[in-house]
Amino acid sequence: MTYRAPLKDMQFVMNELAGLESISQLPGYEDATPDTAQAVLEEAAKFNEQVVAPLNRAGDLNPSSWKDGVVTTTPGFSDAFRQFGEGGWQGVLHPSDFGGQGLPKLVATPCNEMLNAANLSFALCPLLTDGAIEALLTAGSDAQKETFLPKLISGEWTGTMNLTEPQAGSDLAAVRTRAEPQGDGTFKVFGTKIFITYGEHDMAENIVHLVLARTPNAPEGVKGISLFIVPKFLLNADGSLGERNDVHCVSIEHKLGIKASPTAVLQFGDHGGAIGTLVGEENRGLEYMFIMMNSARFSVGMQGIAVSERAYQQAVAFAKERVQSRPVDGSAREAVTIIHHPDVKRMLMTMRALIEGARSVAYVAAAASDIAHQHPDEGVRRQNMALYEFLVPVVKGWSTELSIDVTSLGVQVHGGMGFIEETGAAQHYRDARILPIYEGTTAIQANDLIGRKTVRDGGAMARAICAQIAETEAALGKHGGDAFTAVQAQLKQGREALEAVVEFVIGSAKADPNAVFAGSVPYLKLCGIVFSGWQFGRAMLVADAKRAEDPAFYDAKIATAHFFGQHILSQASAFRAAIVGGGAPANALTADQF
Amino acid sequence: MTYRAPLKDMQFVMNELAGLESISQLPGYEDATPDTAQAVLEEAAKFNEQVVAPLNRAGDLNPSSWKDGVVTTTPGFSDAFRQFGEGGWQGVLHPSDFGGQGLPKLVATPCNEMLNAANLSFALCPLLTDGAIEALLTAGSDAQKETFLPKLISGEWTGTMNLTEPQAGSDLAAVRTRAEPQGDGTFKVFGTKIFITYGEHDMAENIVHLVLARTPNAPEGVKGISLFIVPKFLLNADGSLGERNDVHCVSIEHKLGIKASPTAVLQFGDHGGAIGTLVGEENRGLEYMFIMMNSARFSVGMQGIAVSERAYQQAVAFAKERVQSRPVDGSAREAVTIIHHPDVKRMLMTMRALIEGARSVAYVAAAASDIAHQHPDEGVRRQNMALYEFLVPVVKGWSTELSIDVTSLGVQVHGGMGFIEETGAAQHYRDARILPIYEGTTAIQANDLIGRKTVRDGGAMARAICAQIAETEAALGKHGGDAFTAVQAQLKQGREALEAVVEFVIGSAKADPNAVFAGSVPYLKLCGIVFSGWQFGRAMLVADAKRAEDPAFYDAKIATAHFFGQHILSQASAFRAAIVGGGAPANALTADQF
Repeated sequence: MTYRAPLKDMQFVMNELAGLESISQLPGYEDATPDTAQAVLEEAAKFNEQVVAPLNRAGDLNPSSWKDGVVTTTPGFSDAFRQFGEGGWQGVLHPSDFGGQGLPKLVATPCNEMLNAANLSFALCPLLTDGAIEALLTAGSDAQKETFLPKLISGEWTGTMNLTEPQAGSDLAAVRTRAEPQGDGTFKVFGTKIFITYGEHDMAENIVHLVLARTPNAPEGVKGISLFIVPKFLLNADGSLGERNDVHCVSIEHKLGIKASPTAVLQFGDHGGAIGTLVGEENRGLEYMFIMMNSARFSVGMQGIAVSERAYQQAVAFAKERVQSRPVDGSAREAVTIIHHPDVKRMLMTMRALIEGARSVAYVAAAASDIAHQHPDEGVRRQNMALYEFLVPVVKGWSTELSIDVTSLGVQVHGGMGFIEETGAAQHYRDARILPIYEGTTAIQANDLIGRKTVRDGGAMARAICAQIAETEAALGKHGGDAFTAVQAQLKQGREALEAVVEFVIGSAKADPNAVFAGSVPYLKLCGIVFSGWQFGRAMLVADAKRAEDPAFYDAKIATAHFFGQHILSQASAFRAAIVGGGAPANALTADQF
Repeated sequence: MTYRAPLKDMQFVMNELAGLESISQLPGYEDATPDTAQAVLEEAAKFNEQVVAPLNRAGDLNPSSWKDGVVTTTPGFSDAFRQFGEGGWQGVLHPSDFGGQGLPKLVATPCNEMLNAANLSFALCPLLTDGAIEALLTAGSDAQKETFLPKLISGEWTGTMNLTEPQAGSDLAAVRTRAEPQGDGTFKVFGTKIFITYGEHDMAENIVHLVLARTPNAPEGVKGISLFIVPKFLLNADGSLGERNDVHCVSIEHKLGIKASPTAVLQFGDHGGAIGTLVGEENRGLEYMFIMMNSARFSVGMQGIAVSERAYQQAVAFAKERVQSRPVDGSAREAVTIIHHPDVKRMLMTMRALIEGARSVAYVAAAASDIAHQHPDEGVRRQNMALYEFLVPVVKGWSTELSIDVTSLGVQVHGGMGFIEETGAAQHYRDARILPIYEGTTAIQANDLIGRKTVRDGGAMARAICAQIAETEAALGKHGGDAFTAVQAQLKQGREALEAVVEFVIGSAKADPNAVFAGSVPYLKLCGIVFSGWQFGRAMLVADAKRAEDPAFYDAKIATAHFFGQHILSQASAFRAAIVGGGAPANALTADQF
């Protein structure tokens, strides 16, 4: 078994930290009881462990390939994707009206984590399809919903997001693809899109491209972008597949990692124009795209946690098997398995602590999203939506940044064997490297965190979170004991650092934007460690109360929390120094001085 | 030009921080004046920029290949290596008695950096040859020196280090290769060695394998290991190449990076026994191997700096070209080159600051080695040898660990393009990953730093360094001004953290070795940032004094020092918390709890 879903920790976080019980009392989620959720997770684990995970290495060795416009995926992918669709896994969180299971995001999120841990490359196809579904649910016409949603949710068709163009990476203002109205309600789309994940493949009958383009006379910049549906195959009046549309894959990229997932260059309209239909209103494409992006950003954050968990499990397995050197404490005269060496333990604990912390924050964010959608009280909905939106860039940015470190440690635990491709540890390290880049780089997440999420509300949400953290500190102090007071102290200095940084950001964003934005990524990382530390604080209180039920599990949770406090949360004051005092030197050099 | 040697910074460090002027006054180094050194560095730059660097990408695309025991290197490597030998570059620091140039390590080190920055895979062949030369210089008989050194120093032959065996990674006590005396002064060697860099190739006439093996009845463990010379081709009485020896390359590895450098599995003695001769005395092999290892460890540290510099240059070039998004401060209405965005500047400054700090520490260590070898006063020699030996694990461990972060940032600066192999940024990221592993993992360096370098002398050298740092703090305080007092404050907290950690290590190594060794890598990293910060402090004082000569250069140095203080040196207190308070939770879990 190359991957085993960490069901116990998932359930702990889902039930004890993210509050599934109370989510299942929200209107619409009545079916999502902890028991049902457990059954769903167990089924997901079985499918991902047995069907999807074994294809991970195969995908690396035998990536998607392109020939004459046709993309052939890794052997086995197509069949696994059919099973994925038939099992209902694409529809876990989508509405039952269109064939989905209508479960809360809190339940869909561990499923999502398992799928990504099993196979990052494979999981990208459903990930992008989810984004397309979200966008159509929000902005599609009834006819568009009827036509596309059931097929997307069943996994018969898949979806893509077409944003990037050769001249415009993250800068959507520079989009040049154009859409010309044909007078019959359709448009002809012309342009080139790059970096289109699963932009072409052989795993589904049809591909539903969602494409950003400009209509004639649209305003310049991001205010003149509209969103179009451009299916690979046009549809006949009866809904059956018709003519091949004028969108063609002219090449796929040769990448560092996630090699099984085809990254396409798509050419629209080279043979007369690709037929598309407008989604929602003209010139509101960016807004709709952000719906897809927010869903996708959260999911990419989960990818970071997922690949980290996979790398961790592989490192643990190796460390339990590999025999080398005597223990430093003289407790054995023979060489022992390396998991007994303190530095190997430190590396494994670092991996574990980063993963568990990030998982807790992400699942808590998912619960906030559920409350934001289904709570009867509008004020509660609004507050939770603000919390979720604050956390999305943190989940995306922090969980992916840490996946670089965790997968790197995964290689390191293997020593020389880690550098040999056959071992497989290197694949995680290569695969993870895209995560802090796509769906908005960490800097883009961090700028969002500063601009839209911190400055816009004058720091209100940031301060509200800090107030909650202070309550957890008080509870830890009240509990007492070495580990608890140590975490309390680290959490306090972390929260105070965050408060100081928020005041700096609010106070200086206008007067000295260069200094503030030089600190944006450190600010995001500070949020990542302080929020993780907060959840660890909550977790250790629960673990202590439940200890008798399962001492090995709960003791490990408390020790991991303690470790996180000393080894990771302790970095908070360094981030504070970097942000509050590091803006000037970060910006001091002119371009010529580099 | 894919790489341009940073001659200005190299000369600044060599002259102003490492004190070349005084090195050139030592007996034997009279020729190594700053003017001569400059000329040597300029020639090295020309050769590496024009001949070696262009082969870097070619080596990644077209790695060394194995067929029927023969290894064919990347086209161009063989010719470049011939030029390398003819140019005298293998002999820069080796004695003129055997055809070398006899220059100080301080001058050889920047040459070494350039070669590695130009091409990490290519540079490994000379790197291992250097180690073999050092071992033979120290422990070889006169006949062995006469036979092998001139050929190794001229680059006609190359050298290897054969330590690792399949069952014994870093654990040399487990070496099983055996050497049977033949009664004629030779031995027959039998065994399998793995991970042998340039263990087989087509770039030289002969390969001089230095092999660890056990003689019959040798004591168990590391005390029973002897060192043997096993040449690929045996030598005739007249010194000409004779019969092929019974050592054969049975395969090479498929690696994450440094693909051009063949990593061989060598089989000794499958056809009757490989003929070898003993180096030095029986059972002292480990001691001699450490001579090679210390040389190689320092050089691998330089590899970390080198690949980081290369990645930095590529990221800067991209950031100066790539146009995207308007500036956050509203200073332009159009999209600008991304080097104007604060987060891109922060990333480039991080890369730059880590590199310049590590370079300073490494060059200062090289100078200490020179003084340790050539100073007329024995006390001065001894003190400098202790300083050099303290610094070697830091140079190796810290410079290679940071190369992971720097090359990762190099990918990140490129955004999506960074993940595409054709861009080349990903190669550095892959190549760098071996550096914290080979020649002793970071944990092995850190254990050496704790055991042999800190505990053995009761912390004397560590405290002596701290005392010197305090002097630099005082000078910074006396100077005053924002940047200087900021660095002073960060250096002070860093040095105080280091002092506290040293006391903890000394006080607890015996009573609680597991806790101390769980902090060994954090301790090594703490040394890395504090020593770098120390050198930055010294550098900014020099820069200020010389500012008028070249304001752009010296202002950049001061700003980089200031940046290092706020963004990196500020992490010292987190390392202190991890080391002093983090040992217990690091060791808390049993193997089953992972």
